[in-house]
Amino acid sequence: MENVAVTDQQEQRLSIIKGLIDANELEALSAILKKMQAVEVADILDELTEEQLLSVLPVFEEEDLGYIASNMEMDLLVRLFDIVDRKFYAKIVTNMSSDVRADLYQELEKDQQLELLPYLDKKTREDVIHLSSYPPETAGSIMVTDFATVQSGMTVTQALEKIRKDAPSKKMIYYVYVVDEHMKMRGFVTLKDLIMAEPSTLIKDILNEDFVYAEVYEDRESVAVKIEKYDMVAIPVLNSLKQLAGIVRHDEAIDVIRAEHTEDLEKFMGIVPDPEEMNYSETSPFQHFRKRIIWLASLSILGLLTGMIIHSFEEAISTLVVLALYMPMVADTGGNTGSQAATVVIRAMALGELKIKQWTHIIFKEFRISILLAMVIGTITFGKVLFLSWNVDLPGELTLTYIGLGIAFALSLQVISATLIGAGLPLIVKKFGGDPAVAASPAITTLVDVTGLLIYFGVATLLFF
Amino acid sequence: MENVAVTDQQEQRLSIIKGLIDANELEALSAILKKMQAVEVADILDELTEEQLLSVLPVFEEEDLGYIASNMEMDLLVRLFDIVDRKFYAKIVTNMSSDVRADLYQELEKDQQLELLPYLDKKTREDVIHLSSYPPETAGSIMVTDFATVQSGMTVTQALEKIRKDAPSKKMIYYVYVVDEHMKMRGFVTLKDLIMAEPSTLIKDILNEDFVYAEVYEDRESVAVKIEKYDMVAIPVLNSLKQLAGIVRHDEAIDVIRAEHTEDLEKFMGIVPDPEEMNYSETSPFQHFRKRIIWLASLSILGLLTGMIIHSFEEAISTLVVLALYMPMVADTGGNTGSQAATVVIRAMALGELKIKQWTHIIFKEFRISILLAMVIGTITFGKVLFLSWNVDLPGELTLTYIGLGIAFALSLQVISATLIGAGLPLIVKKFGGDPAVAASPAITTLVDVTGLLIYFGVATLLFF
Repeated sequence: MENVAVTDQQEQRLSIIKGLIDANELEALSAILKKMQAVEVADILDELTEEQLLSVLPVFEEEDLGYIASNMEMDLLVRLFDIVDRKFYAKIVTNMSSDVRADLYQELEKDQQLELLPYLDKKTREDVIHLSSYPPETAGSIMVTDFATVQSGMTVTQALEKIRKDAPSKKMIYYVYVVDEHMKMRGFVTLKDLIMAEPSTLIKDILNEDFVYAEVYEDRESVAVKIEKYDMVAIPVLNSLKQLAGIVRHDEAIDVIRAEHTEDLEKFMGIVPDPEEMNYSETSPFQHFRKRIIWLASLSILGLLTGMIIHSFEEAISTLVVLALYMPMVADTGGNTGSQAATVVIRAMALGELKIKQWTHIIFKEFRISILLAMVIGTITFGKVLFLSWNVDLPGELTLTYIGLGIAFALSLQVISATLIGAGLPLIVKKFGGDPAVAASPAITTLVDVTGLLIYFGVATLLFF
Repeated sequence: MENVAVTDQQEQRLSIIKGLIDANELEALSAILKKMQAVEVADILDELTEEQLLSVLPVFEEEDLGYIASNMEMDLLVRLFDIVDRKFYAKIVTNMSSDVRADLYQELEKDQQLELLPYLDKKTREDVIHLSSYPPETAGSIMVTDFATVQSGMTVTQALEKIRKDAPSKKMIYYVYVVDEHMKMRGFVTLKDLIMAEPSTLIKDILNEDFVYAEVYEDRESVAVKIEKYDMVAIPVLNSLKQLAGIVRHDEAIDVIRAEHTEDLEKFMGIVPDPEEMNYSETSPFQHFRKRIIWLASLSILGLLTGMIIHSFEEAISTLVVLALYMPMVADTGGNTGSQAATVVIRAMALGELKIKQWTHIIFKEFRISILLAMVIGTITFGKVLFLSWNVDLPGELTLTYIGLGIAFALSLQVISATLIGAGLPLIVKKFGGDPAVAASPAITTLVDVTGLLIYFGVATLLFF
């Protein structure tokens, strides 16, 4: 399991830094902090009190502060608005990464936004307002506007000259985008291309014209998949006029993949994913409740169906109480085997290892797996019945061995049917254009409860009455 | 859910290409294929028959073929060994990405390896053998050896000259590593640094000496976390002598995160993760069976405990058969609420949103959430009992309303206790140094089955007898 939390070593450094702040040793502090990576400094600042923060912030240069702030917790950045003066805040904001800056702007209250805007220069102001306008989960909402452009008529020397002039403000440049006078994207060159080429070569002669790009309103997940598939450091984002509007960097792709991972896990457990992706502590108990209750309540209501099935076999249960004892096992075993099969199939489809047209292959394979599982589970069940019910009262000519064999047989059938349902349901959902992940645990647990009870009481009626 | 499979558009292109191959239109074929990205060509080649493959491969230039092969399915690359002649195969292998090449080498049979080696040049041969020697899941096993190095005494002009000389064989260069004469890493410069600097500047004056690195035997997951945390395009990998042994690129980090995602999902469902990460179709039914049976069988055996609890209340069940009817609901509801709480807490800890020292905060929050859940589930349960059991025979002075309230109360307690167990178990596992993910579904389902039945029959004994 991945863990990006603060390590012991960082804890130690944190306490040293707190000590230096309290002793007001600003020079020593500055010496330590300036040797650290921006993201590490941000981790430290996240842990400080407001007072400590106020004394440590002026140690940094404006540009560094921008990098550091881009890595700080959103919460703290918002609170900072009321702690430092507007001008200083505007300086930090101006030097921040453009995507984080736009997120921060959206997190501020309406009146805070209006107070901040006059302190920003025209370019930054427009950039913030523009980037904040894209809906969440689109390429536009995660792109940055720091990129280098050149024109196709330039020579390599001229292009390098332009990059040198523009670059100090850009965080990271590897691709240089080639645009026409209307900012329409023509292609790209890499810094490596520029370095390898003769200085007098024209850009249009080394231009890569076949490029992969995203659209501003494209789903961020599809953008992440492109970055991953084509191993890109950054992907250009074009608007409807094919103008270069921004770039999405590879580290955003990782964030998107992690967010989707959380969403998948939640879907698997019947939790409604949160579109704002607030973290655990930010979400109130009532919001947590709302995310979880929908499926729990639906399941509870659907439970009427299983309740009705059990009721219709009430007489059988009264005559042969031992049947009741093994009912929970039918539900549990079905839920477990079904969820396992669903997980494996859903994941293999997501990774592109399985395609829906291979459904006969999948179902046949799962059938063979389920036979093996059924043999083992059936044997254990038989032993369990003999062991647990050895002194149970049996009516008429029924023997415990016969009852045990019957229950074990029913359980084996349940394992096979639940596995096939678990593997089949995601395929059916996918076939009709849905997300196979919704066919995970919740839906399957419900379905195999019903089929399991029908199998169980069906077998019992056939063999014991 | 992410999906990296072949799209409709690609399907269409595939059929055109197959048509051109069958018509032996090699020139048109070449024109189409050369405009495509290497990874797209690889997707297409994966779908061709051996015969088609043989006629299309010679279309490409050697170097392109190396890029394409690096993106092809491992299966096909292995089969290719017997289809094409050794010399051609060696040419493809030589031009492949060094990490994929090492993986391929390990996939070949012993005698195939020995047949291949003499066809490789000395440098490639050593590189293959060296990279194959690192254990799976280490930085060494996923690093590549294509990187550019310069020395600190060089000027920027000399450094650029060396890169120009070395670079054509390197896939992607953004960081240039600064090493001493023993290959010990001193720091790095970016291409941007080189372009921005005066040509006569010495490398040692623009060198970044504080750098983040990985060690060859470091777990690949920790490497991925570093790449993500520090937003790196590639991370240098040092051996025990602090010599630069390779680099791990950002796209590997994404692969690692995806693999860990699969592993997490499997752990959540009680499936034993596969160290070789074979895909669904490669894994035989028996191997699938082995991955799933361990938890299923353990759960089935642990079921003895729930069986014994139910047995000890057998008399209560015989007297009041209605109790048996709602037993499966206790197990299901507990499993569902517990798994939800566990999923949310485990995920929040993995993302660093929650730390273990916040356990009182977590437990209290989950307690409040569970009260809300319990109220809703309890109300539904009460309604369910009234609706389903309206004509049930009740002994003595018990009324259906009283029974319904009792069962609803027991269910509410089960919701609260299961939520707290679900949230608490991962915290306890983490506290003792384990991976919280193992505390997911399987363990919790078992535990809340036991506590649920005790609560259910406890409440029933207290209220009804």
